[in-house]
Amino acid sequence: MVILGIDPGLATVGYGVIEVQSAYSLKVLDVGVIETPKEESTPVRLAMIENCMQQLIDRYKPDEVAIEELFFTKNITTGIAVAEARGVILLTAIKACGRLYEYTPMQIKQAITGWGGADKRQVQQMVKTLLGLSKVPRPDDAADALAVAYTHSQANRMANLFSI
Amino acid sequence: MVILGIDPGLATVGYGVIEVQSAYSLKVLDVGVIETPKEESTPVRLAMIENCMQQLIDRYKPDEVAIEELFFTKNITTGIAVAEARGVILLTAIKACGRLYEYTPMQIKQAITGWGGADKRQVQQMVKTLLGLSKVPRPDDAADALAVAYTHSQANRMANLFSI
Repeated sequence: MVILGIDPGLATVGYGVIEVQSAYSLKVLDVGVIETPKEESTPVRLAMIENCMQQLIDRYKPDEVAIEELFFTKNITTGIAVAEARGVILLTAIKACGRLYEYTPMQIKQAITGWGGADKRQVQQMVKTLLGLSKVPRPDDAADALAVAYTHSQANRMANLFSI
Repeated sequence: MVILGIDPGLATVGYGVIEVQSAYSLKVLDVGVIETPKEESTPVRLAMIENCMQQLIDRYKPDEVAIEELFFTKNITTGIAVAEARGVILLTAIKACGRLYEYTPMQIKQAITGWGGADKRQVQQMVKTLLGLSKVPRPDDAADALAVAYTHSQANRMANLFSI
């Protein structure tokens, strides 16, 4: 099974693609970011995100897509822009795949480190360890996207284990 | 010239289609709302909005699309959902039309009533009068969408008048 994890944003969308080979064997197929230039209008940047998302989906044909939920933001203007981009990502994913899952930041931290209050560095170090990477993926959004994909693989594993 | 005005939302998207026949003659071609059921997931509702938006665009082939900006919200959770829907609307519009304009609530109130602090009822009564309608369109989102379309027609008229 191939899982595409997404950390949503307007300027930067993180993505991480993992292949679940068995309950305890995961392989990272790709990790990176989609970036959109600040000089462009929001609608044009949204169209760029859709285009890049579609390319990722065409290349890796994910069976499931996992995306981080937005709960709050200190900067409401940035929050609106991120939510607009997230809407486009949700749309692209549901049309292409249909199996779409959302996780809160706390769920992701718990799945990765066992503690919902873990900080960003702890999560990133655990992503590196759990996925057997030689270093922490950069930038942060790429690492965060892998964390979402990993969280979903663990949710699936638990569901299979306990027939949830 | 045909203008499609949009009042964005997740549960209800208002739309108003006007045809500008001359500088002082506007005709309402359509006004209404797209509604999505609360029982469905957000991604499914976003796909419904995209589909209905595309139908509107196919039917009326707008030359330009005008959409209300989001600035703030008291309920941040609702705000995120509306922004996600707005992202999908912006995407659909930019792909189909390319001429997309955004107006703040204050710009719309000023264009319609001459006063940025006007209340919703005053705006709606003026929309009815300015567009020669027999009654205020219902629900509110439909009237608001016509207000956005009208605002854009006036912005165009001023631009032509003063060669802005």
